[in-house]
Amino acid sequence: MTGLIHPVILCGGSGTRLWPRSRPERPKPFLSLLGERSLFEATLARCTGARFAPPVVVAGAHHLDLAEDQGPPDMRIVVEPEGRNTAPAIALAAARLPADAIMLVCPSDHHIADTAAFHAAAEAAAALASEGHLVAFAITPDRPETGYGYIERGEPIDGGYRVARFVEKPDAARAREFLAAGTFAWNGGIFAFGAGAFLAELEHHRPAMAHAIRESVAQGSEEGRRFQPEATAFAAIKAESVDYAVMENTRRAAMVPVEMGWSDIGTWAALRAARQADAAGNVVRGKAELIECRNVMVDSDGPRVSCIGLDDVIVVVDGDEVLVARADGAQMVGKLGGASGR
Amino acid sequence: MTGLIHPVILCGGSGTRLWPRSRPERPKPFLSLLGERSLFEATLARCTGARFAPPVVVAGAHHLDLAEDQGPPDMRIVVEPEGRNTAPAIALAAARLPADAIMLVCPSDHHIADTAAFHAAAEAAAALASEGHLVAFAITPDRPETGYGYIERGEPIDGGYRVARFVEKPDAARAREFLAAGTFAWNGGIFAFGAGAFLAELEHHRPAMAHAIRESVAQGSEEGRRFQPEATAFAAIKAESVDYAVMENTRRAAMVPVEMGWSDIGTWAALRAARQADAAGNVVRGKAELIECRNVMVDSDGPRVSCIGLDDVIVVVDGDEVLVARADGAQMVGKLGGASGR
Repeated sequence: MTGLIHPVILCGGSGTRLWPRSRPERPKPFLSLLGERSLFEATLARCTGARFAPPVVVAGAHHLDLAEDQGPPDMRIVVEPEGRNTAPAIALAAARLPADAIMLVCPSDHHIADTAAFHAAAEAAAALASEGHLVAFAITPDRPETGYGYIERGEPIDGGYRVARFVEKPDAARAREFLAAGTFAWNGGIFAFGAGAFLAELEHHRPAMAHAIRESVAQGSEEGRRFQPEATAFAAIKAESVDYAVMENTRRAAMVPVEMGWSDIGTWAALRAARQADAAGNVVRGKAELIECRNVMVDSDGPRVSCIGLDDVIVVVDGDEVLVARADGAQMVGKLGGASGR
Repeated sequence: MTGLIHPVILCGGSGTRLWPRSRPERPKPFLSLLGERSLFEATLARCTGARFAPPVVVAGAHHLDLAEDQGPPDMRIVVEPEGRNTAPAIALAAARLPADAIMLVCPSDHHIADTAAFHAAAEAAAALASEGHLVAFAITPDRPETGYGYIERGEPIDGGYRVARFVEKPDAARAREFLAAGTFAWNGGIFAFGAGAFLAELEHHRPAMAHAIRESVAQGSEEGRRFQPEATAFAAIKAESVDYAVMENTRRAAMVPVEMGWSDIGTWAALRAARQADAAGNVVRGKAELIECRNVMVDSDGPRVSCIGLDDVIVVVDGDEVLVARADGAQMVGKLGGASGR
């Protein structure tokens, strides 16, 4: 039993593959894609209770209003002056917490079906973090997914494993090997760190970034619950993920295996899988009529969608944009002109 | 060389299989589905020139404004008090023309690519009609279509053939036989009749209908270019096509073979075939982006449509309705709730 766990909720990520529902001014974390709550609200709700300190939310300047509308009154907000990927964002939060605080870093745009399993893993990860480990949630894979990074487990330690290595997104053959081996798990981007331990590792492996974070925080300003780091120092940082900057380099990486019905809802196809389908595999939100359709997802914000004879097709209507994609082409949505702002 | 040919343009038919573009208040004939002109305007333009008298347009009460907006100043309009299929509609027009007038009956919602071939066939049909024949345009088939009625040719006569028989929509096997035989043609619903000869045959085979038409016209009223038949007598008529009521019964049926790039544009798939496709078979009207798509038709009245990985799919956006159908399911569009007014 460690002290309170400090949730650090990351609101970066544009979710362009969920365009046209996800748009720059209304990105994925703040959308109610599953149930009535937004993914951000569900993430916060998951990190609430006797074991959790008030959350620290790291959000871009454009999304502060959304975050404040949807977040709880006791949340603190760290403003990302610009998007620089996850390592700087986490470092900002770490620099605002006591050195002995245990951070639980959570992306705000994932879905976790089994909250109890999440809590158990958080507890185990926090315990390891309080011993100085930098702990990744290691999500037990159920398919040879090529869209995620993997973590290979090393020697067992109390409550988890050391990390043998991080592996970038594999091709299909390697993904099948990983699944068969049973010693690989998905890296879901959820971590537990001691705030001081994290900053020490960052200092060791990315001294320039650590320096810039210190400068930016030292010259930052607080206004109500918002903390605004100094922008020029922060903007000079090279964007880098926490995996690249810290986790792949540190000797203190550990992992906690977890099965918790996790999805990053990375594409419309992933969202379809997370929603409840009818007997024909169809998933409908909004007005729709389906004739002779199977595995069709319709998501409309208003107009009625009438489908005939479709199989494995996703139809999304959002304002002045209509998306019609085969499910296996859902990865390409981000490349569309609309999704990339053209 | 006969006297002037009197175009009789039929504006009935709701075109529910072209929903959601075709709607009850804005039906298929009055839509610009090919080029800038509506099908009705193109039909009128085809029947204009030195050989044609001013047209007689038969239209329902709800569509008079559309017809008057789109038609030429010298057109006369006969108001159909209610829809009763083609036999009563043609009979109304016949009763308003001199007995020796040669009528050229044209549906207003077909596409004809080759106007010169149409004119040549109209001339041949008019010549036969002036000799007392009831003449059907016999459209040379280029595929074993099951969606049309067929006409089998009989003995040759000057400029055409006698009709051996009319055949209702065949199944696929019979349609293939018809195509192979070479003696069958499509019945496109285009006819040339002497007005008096038509009414005489109607009197012989459908005396009750002929009587009701006489009553309705005798008690009708003229106002400007509109003629309004008396509604009660007309409403008592049993709906029947000219094929059933007259053509299948008369001994004076003749046919004129014609190849004129004809399509009834009966479905979105037929419309796709009549439009110009790009090298991948895609046909786009409105804003669209297509990635890895083949044989896709997009028709949008405003919103951008983004498609990924589709083959042989039709996407139509019209106001508050979106249709997404496999092309081979286009026949079912009329069965959708939206198309049937639900």
